[in-house]
Amino acid sequence: MKTIKDSVHDHIRIDGVARDLLDTPAVQRLRNIRQLGTVSLVYPSANHTRFEHSLGVYHLACEALDHLNVEGKRAERVHAAALLHDVGHGPFSHNLEPITHRRTGRYHDDVHDLLADGAVGDVLREHDLEPSAVADLVAGEGRFGQLVSGELDVDRMDYLVRDAHHTGVPYGTIDHGRLVRELTFADGELVLDEGNVQTAESLLVARALMNPAVYSHSVARIGKAMLRRASERLLDSPETDVDAARLQRMDDHDLIAALRSCPETSEFSRRLDHRDLYKRAVWAEIDDVPGGIIEADHEALLEFEREIADDAGIDPECVILDVPSRPSMKESTTSVVVNGDIRRLEQQSPLVEALRASQYSQWRLGVYSPPEMRDQVGRSAVETLGLDIDGALVSEVRDGLDATLDQFVD
Amino acid sequence: MKTIKDSVHDHIRIDGVARDLLDTPAVQRLRNIRQLGTVSLVYPSANHTRFEHSLGVYHLACEALDHLNVEGKRAERVHAAALLHDVGHGPFSHNLEPITHRRTGRYHDDVHDLLADGAVGDVLREHDLEPSAVADLVAGEGRFGQLVSGELDVDRMDYLVRDAHHTGVPYGTIDHGRLVRELTFADGELVLDEGNVQTAESLLVARALMNPAVYSHSVARIGKAMLRRASERLLDSPETDVDAARLQRMDDHDLIAALRSCPETSEFSRRLDHRDLYKRAVWAEIDDVPGGIIEADHEALLEFEREIADDAGIDPECVILDVPSRPSMKESTTSVVVNGDIRRLEQQSPLVEALRASQYSQWRLGVYSPPEMRDQVGRSAVETLGLDIDGALVSEVRDGLDATLDQFVD
Amino acid sequence: MKTIKDSVHDHIRIDGVARDLLDTPAVQRLRNIRQLGTVSLVYPSANHTRFEHSLGVYHLACEALDHLNVEGKRAERVHAAALLHDVGHGPFSHNLEPITHRRTGRYHDDVHDLLADGAVGDVLREHDLEPSAVADLVAGEGRFGQLVSGELDVDRMDYLVRDAHHTGVPYGTIDHGRLVRELTFADGELVLDEGNVQTAESLLVARALMNPAVYSHSVARIGKAMLRRASERLLDSPETDVDAARLQRMDDHDLIAALRSCPETSEFSRRLDHRDLYKRAVWAEIDDVPGGIIEADHEALLEFEREIADDAGIDPECVILDVPSRPSMKESTTSVVVNGDIRRLEQQSPLVEALRASQYSQWRLGVYSPPEMRDQVGRSAVETLGLDIDGALVSEVRDGLDATLDQFVD
Amino acid sequence: MKTIKDSVHDHIRIDGVARDLLDTPAVQRLRNIRQLGTVSLVYPSANHTRFEHSLGVYHLACEALDHLNVEGKRAERVHAAALLHDVGHGPFSHNLEPITHRRTGRYHDDVHDLLADGAVGDVLREHDLEPSAVADLVAGEGRFGQLVSGELDVDRMDYLVRDAHHTGVPYGTIDHGRLVRELTFADGELVLDEGNVQTAESLLVARALMNPAVYSHSVARIGKAMLRRASERLLDSPETDVDAARLQRMDDHDLIAALRSCPETSEFSRRLDHRDLYKRAVWAEIDDVPGGIIEADHEALLEFEREIADDAGIDPECVILDVPSRPSMKESTTSVVVNGDIRRLEQQSPLVEALRASQYSQWRLGVYSPPEMRDQVGRSAVETLGLDIDGALVSEVRDGLDATLDQFVD
Repeated sequence: MKTIKDSVHDHIRIDGVARDLLDTPAVQRLRNIRQLGTVSLVYPSANHTRFEHSLGVYHLACEALDHLNVEGKRAERVHAAALLHDVGHGPFSHNLEPITHRRTGRYHDDVHDLLADGAVGDVLREHDLEPSAVADLVAGEGRFGQLVSGELDVDRMDYLVRDAHHTGVPYGTIDHGRLVRELTFADGELVLDEGNVQTAESLLVARALMNPAVYSHSVARIGKAMLRRASERLLDSPETDVDAARLQRMDDHDLIAALRSCPETSEFSRRLDHRDLYKRAVWAEIDDVPGGIIEADHEALLEFEREIADDAGIDPECVILDVPSRPSMKESTTSVVVNGDIRRLEQQSPLVEALRASQYSQWRLGVYSPPEMRDQVGRSAVETLGLDIDGALVSEVRDGLDATLDQFVD
Repeated sequence: MKTIKDSVHDHIRIDGVARDLLDTPAVQRLRNIRQLGTVSLVYPSANHTRFEHSLGVYHLACEALDHLNVEGKRAERVHAAALLHDVGHGPFSHNLEPITHRRTGRYHDDVHDLLADGAVGDVLREHDLEPSAVADLVAGEGRFGQLVSGELDVDRMDYLVRDAHHTGVPYGTIDHGRLVRELTFADGELVLDEGNVQTAESLLVARALMNPAVYSHSVARIGKAMLRRASERLLDSPETDVDAARLQRMDDHDLIAALRSCPETSEFSRRLDHRDLYKRAVWAEIDDVPGGIIEADHEALLEFEREIADDAGIDPECVILDVPSRPSMKESTTSVVVNGDIRRLEQQSPLVEALRASQYSQWRLGVYSPPEMRDQVGRSAVETLGLDIDGALVSEVRDGLDATLDQFVD
Repeated sequence: MKTIKDSVHDHIRIDGVARDLLDTPAVQRLRNIRQLGTVSLVYPSANHTRFEHSLGVYHLACEALDHLNVEGKRAERVHAAALLHDVGHGPFSHNLEPITHRRTGRYHDDVHDLLADGAVGDVLREHDLEPSAVADLVAGEGRFGQLVSGELDVDRMDYLVRDAHHTGVPYGTIDHGRLVRELTFADGELVLDEGNVQTAESLLVARALMNPAVYSHSVARIGKAMLRRASERLLDSPETDVDAARLQRMDDHDLIAALRSCPETSEFSRRLDHRDLYKRAVWAEIDDVPGGIIEADHEALLEFEREIADDAGIDPECVILDVPSRPSMKESTTSVVVNGDIRRLEQQSPLVEALRASQYSQWRLGVYSPPEMRDQVGRSAVETLGLDIDGALVSEVRDGLDATLDQFVD
Repeated sequence: MKTIKDSVHDHIRIDGVARDLLDTPAVQRLRNIRQLGTVSLVYPSANHTRFEHSLGVYHLACEALDHLNVEGKRAERVHAAALLHDVGHGPFSHNLEPITHRRTGRYHDDVHDLLADGAVGDVLREHDLEPSAVADLVAGEGRFGQLVSGELDVDRMDYLVRDAHHTGVPYGTIDHGRLVRELTFADGELVLDEGNVQTAESLLVARALMNPAVYSHSVARIGKAMLRRASERLLDSPETDVDAARLQRMDDHDLIAALRSCPETSEFSRRLDHRDLYKRAVWAEIDDVPGGIIEADHEALLEFEREIADDAGIDPECVILDVPSRPSMKESTTSVVVNGDIRRLEQQSPLVEALRASQYSQWRLGVYSPPEMRDQVGRSAVETLGLDIDGALVSEVRDGLDATLDQFVD
């Protein structure tokens, strides 16, 4: 039995298979991957890592299983999955996932190979656990997969509280103790027990409030977009032999060092290092953006970027088009027992629809460029993309928003 | 300059008129009035008082005025109003306000007499402040009255954070530092500056989540209903000469001692002291309650109580009917600047309507009685009040809810 | 299984005999006894009660027993003792203990009668627990009594953290999780396991720093001295029939109401209510006080008070002489395993001797009086008690100290 | 005016010269230097950086200057120095300072060149501040230099609280609000005002308790020793052209990448990455170590290492000798006003001497090696260094200590 001191859960006790997995290179590597990627450009204290988060998820999984009276191999399998659930992350966590997914076809929670190989596979087999069964749990499959990756998973419970603690933004402070203790199974489904509609709402609300303040803060998005652009250039550079699979296995140090030393990426790298970021040239609401733009594929977006640059008469490297996918809300299908029946939260709570509408109204398409080119890039983007904003408005809104949003930008 | 250590704001510096007001009996009296009344029957750590809350409100008012560059007499007047805003409270804060209001016609924020008299009046006049002007601010009147009592007042900012801290329920943890700094005046109105729709939402959400978990927790409501019943009996007792005006000036100690020693109230008092509370015989949703019941006046409700008891063949003292007023949501008209215009939050945020719907769905009519009489009281109440629930359902729901809701009931 | 939300330990789960004891009048009564008595005159947030503290002690006892693998009846007995350990407290906790002890011969931890009688005795016997065996544990007797009342008891672990949380003074913030987990038995003695000299020191230091800042703050001492004086007058008043045994069973409300209504105590009561306290006329270090004064018995001190008043030509009620006993340091004999041997902390840590010296240097004899009589009382006390301070110095030191110490005095 | 959200001080407002310095590469670079170096190998949440610490020091400096009524250029100079005080740090903060100092003759607080050059120099001169005057403050020179670097500097106040927050070890939680407000100047010296002996003691105690638990934790020391060894090899490697000056200007990413890619250091790097650390072969108390060893210079220690390896018949790379300098206690000369006189804390408080003795007793010489070579290395080291421990004892103590000390080792 080992005890680890954690800034969120205080003492975490770790034992059995988890104890042995802790010392594997795959888990230790998570020490060098920041949980929130470029969010630390906005909130300077947000330097926590996937390692401590993984310990926290393991801790909450243990508490949930204790409460559910699950023991033996079945519990150990979940312990392993909880600790290992993020080993598939590349550098800067989710920030580069679209790139690596596009090139490798794999998301971070597809860890069948990673768990079968090397020290992790050895440890699992020593404890009589089938790596593929653990990987299935990480992918959210099966009864207990819901606890690791699902609407009521302990992953979310840990990250909301941890991200709130480290950014200083209080909105994520949920009552995880209550959540974990109200979990139960009904018809094979993980649900919140009778009397917890509000408990489920609080989880949803925490996520909804953290989103614009932290996860999708405009400056974090700009940083992420620049990092992605740089990483694409790195992958395409003839000077290096980094491919997507190798990128995926890097940690933050590797990637930063590679970006600094590669000639095609050193300027982006310098900007990120010095926080000399691009600024918003356009920041458009969903209703002002043609549907075709939102649905456009990667190639089409690249083409738009080139056109905007072309039209503005500047280097294409000076335009980044950032189009998030349409808002979704996974938590809306959270199951809660109400008067003995299992209900989806969205059937039960008027908040779900409202938060979905909020998300919709907070969605923004961004076009970013060096500050001195904002005006021409903005005009050109509005025209190229067919945005429903007249030129004057663009810069006005932009400045107003900058004044406000930069407030928390260090 | 005096510094006071506070468990929420750490160090509170107090100076000028506030420093002198601190030592008046009217302010010191607030030490003996619990902030949340019978909520401590549910959350045993919730023993904080109106005194520390008043210091916190004063502290946030100072911060807001600093930020708004308000100085001199105008600022001092607000300082005084902030510190004095709760001196009108009777014992157990809001718990008994309906009784005292019914008999004196006065709410706790009508403090014109209290501020003109005695030591408080003397201190205010020594500092060249007109007591009636300060009382106006307490009542929310005038430009700066909005800061003391309004949709964006510092009162709410303090109590949400303080109640969260002392109950242990995290939902009230708002970012008061940001709220205070984003306040501004537009057209004479206190508003949140550009870019703060979400800041306003977070305040609304915190209030909405604290409500069922804390302020309207069923056990706190039962305790409050029993305390009210006991206080009515005390006022009507021939053994004492306590009238509503005197009740209003008591503190918690006075009232508890009076209830313990008065023969007509000693049994209620014993029950409250031993937490041997009545239980819910009925707990009905708003759609199942005839409109006439919700709108009924005090006399009509007393008549209903008597009828229920009569019908059940028991002592009327064993039935308490608890009908909250229809849900309202003061914060919905919070003003926020959006693209240069002042907007009401309800126009801007889909959350307002959803939270209103939530409140509506959380509304409950309660009928309480000693546990051993629940069945007959429940049946009789359903019939007498014309509730749309059949007898069987009543006890089923009741038990289910009890099991769940009593979880946090110590 | 019941879950209670606590502001310090978050969720406390309570089961078995403790669950049943919770609802007894003796335990519910603790809701109305402030943990720190008159300390709330200095730290306005310090309104926590013996009830929540008792829950906390129960919680830590459960954790410790889990860790020590103690189960069954033996564990239940300790659970009961932990929850009941403070039922013997009178109003204002320790504040009046010298009075009641002098008149009843009983300290607050002598609870054999209280546990045998009434609902508590019934519950204990229903759970097959012998009340006297539980009372022995409360008194610190036997192997597990050390856990309830001893150098390493969970009582201290809870109150240090809780008092820090509620006063806002950070010094008491110990690592109780580590302490509880490092407990072990060696030769039947409760000790800290190998490698914990520093853990033991941290407990000692926390206590030593909280002492002058909180527990012995001069204003808390003055309030306590006035409360004691008032309580003595209450006991001696011909107008009431309160005796020491009855005083001991009162709660804070009872005592405050009694002091307010009794003619002999109403003036002290008014002063305490309005925080219109006596001030220090003398504040003398231990080396400046003749040994005879420190060792003097209660009668002798009364005689000194009368003499000082007489000499100053004022009402004896205007002089209070406050002589603490010589400093002691219970924690110095904490046992720690060092290289396999059990050692007393004082043998092992140079801090013990230093903290003892600190305590010695912080010891103060106080003479208190209404502010306007301080000079004559001070002069008269120096002479009567034979203090080694010349008149001029008395008032100088006094004023300097007042300026400083009153800083945290609200 | 910019506002930055900080996990420790909540909102930090930054203005004037500090606002402009924030965007310089020298300050932004601090984002990539972990505050506690290899301590994160023990406490996985300890990933905070010199950047957020520098903001915190700036924040406390502003509060202290406000309190001291210092304004204008004099204040701005201190603001700049506070924000810039750590720009001289190399990767892993203090961890490599002995190496770079030995080779460049410069400590991290010698920043005259760094402040005169580049963007920092430009910003300072634009604000009419002399870079060398700011650098003098960083070096602790002059009246206000004491506030930036001295016994009562705001540097320590920030790091104690911040390190406690991020490690989860509560001992560093001082009352910085009180400390800052009690600062005053007496005879040109920064002192704590009357009545603050205990305040000064609390600072000293916090430092003394954090030391063994955090700063000198054995595993953090082993990690540091391995990092130093690797860095020495890097500097000496013919494969790279990194010299000490360049090392000093690296950040953590640069160094880690360099160590990973250099053939001479890749094995150490792998061990650090996988937390596959050396273990203690010897862990000797100060009284068991000949004075000559403690005073030995760098060359002599290298010679001892070689001898131990030779004697044990193993590769010299497998032995690391770690000899801390003799304990010192800077805070012992903290000045406090007592009865109007300035006194050194060590004259006034018996704790100083005790804490010094504690430090002395906690001092340890370490010899580290791969786990499988511990026995032979231990025996050989005892003999070579002339330590006063017999062979058997070495491994016994070692194992006991490991069991205990590894408890908090993740």
